[in-house]
Amino acid sequence: MKYRRVPDETIRRLPVYLRGAIYFSRQGMKSVSSEKLAGLVGVNSWQIRKDFSYFGEFGTPGVGYDIGTLIKHIQRILRLNVVHKAALVGAGNLGSALLAYPGFRMYGFEIAAAFDMDKRKVGKKRAGVVIEDMAKLRTLKARYIRLGIIAVPEEAAQDVADQLVLAGVKGILNFSPRYVSVPSKVKIITIDIAMDLACLPYYTPAG
Amino acid sequence: MKYRRVPDETIRRLPVYLRGAIYFSRQGMKSVSSEKLAGLVGVNSWQIRKDFSYFGEFGTPGVGYDIGTLIKHIQRILRLNVVHKAALVGAGNLGSALLAYPGFRMYGFEIAAAFDMDKRKVGKKRAGVVIEDMAKLRTLKARYIRLGIIAVPEEAAQDVADQLVLAGVKGILNFSPRYVSVPSKVKIITIDIAMDLACLPYYTPAG
Repeated sequence: MKYRRVPDETIRRLPVYLRGAIYFSRQGMKSVSSEKLAGLVGVNSWQIRKDFSYFGEFGTPGVGYDIGTLIKHIQRILRLNVVHKAALVGAGNLGSALLAYPGFRMYGFEIAAAFDMDKRKVGKKRAGVVIEDMAKLRTLKARYIRLGIIAVPEEAAQDVADQLVLAGVKGILNFSPRYVSVPSKVKIITIDIAMDLACLPYYTPAG
Repeated sequence: MKYRRVPDETIRRLPVYLRGAIYFSRQGMKSVSSEKLAGLVGVNSWQIRKDFSYFGEFGTPGVGYDIGTLIKHIQRILRLNVVHKAALVGAGNLGSALLAYPGFRMYGFEIAAAFDMDKRKVGKKRAGVVIEDMAKLRTLKARYIRLGIIAVPEEAAQDVADQLVLAGVKGILNFSPRYVSVPSKVKIITIDIAMDLACLPYYTPAG
């Protein structure tokens, strides 16, 4: 199926919908209304309907969206219908948490390699993955690993990003609380854990 | 200053703008255009101008927004202009990473307490915070800790959320990859690390 060009804002919401759809699917539901999905994921139902309109018409009035179809459509648009291998750089606390994180598989991700600067960590296993020397980053291309995850201290983040780009990585998930610059052909998503927390006080006035 | 009711979607973007404004401020810049901010944070400039219109008119045509004023406005709307104490539950790899995370202070957050079920961890220090027994959660209210961070395995997440609510917490940041239900008076934000990664393959087609 060919999809119309989907706006970035919609692309950003699709994983949220996917997660909600998987949740309902696991509860044994077959279809879901945009209102019900809206209630779960915290996005307006009109926004959901507008976003889904990019996939063509597959909702049934009064019944809602077929959950299985929805999951497949979103996975196909996001190219999550194949396994994506990612390389983790930084096997400290955060890196180890990411290696053990059960959520990646839900979206078809596999952390297939892990690297650390600390020679004492090299050769050790974390969550089934052997930690490799940073010099081995250059093997990523040959191993079909096209995504990188940066979980190093912020002062090392830019250097690691540069090395990942040199190693042929096309997408980077950056957990360092700092903007990192990469060539425009490389997509970088920076996760600022504290930033997500920054919304909370708005909703929780003291008193 | 009194602000008009700001939509949730705008509230969600404000921390992104704040982070960008702080970044420019640290680079010594005094003012920034919506286009320049848009380039940094990856949101359309018209969207930024629309979002900022809720603060009243403070941009200068041809010059842009005063960065100091911008930071203050956003901090005030998000109620980040005071220190917010948070309690962390779960001092495993992820919890330890969060305790050591330098980004929280940027938004006025302080992880003031940490709890773990594992009695062997209780009494030990992580990043300057002594890990306490779960039974001590009930002291949160008296300690003016109104935010909770859940960093426990997903099967324990709902139970921990219930305990945090009982302890009087008004806002929860949930790192478990599972939806957790709380009373409507409590605001919960679920961070799904893998979900953020789920956008990447869309932008990084193979080949």
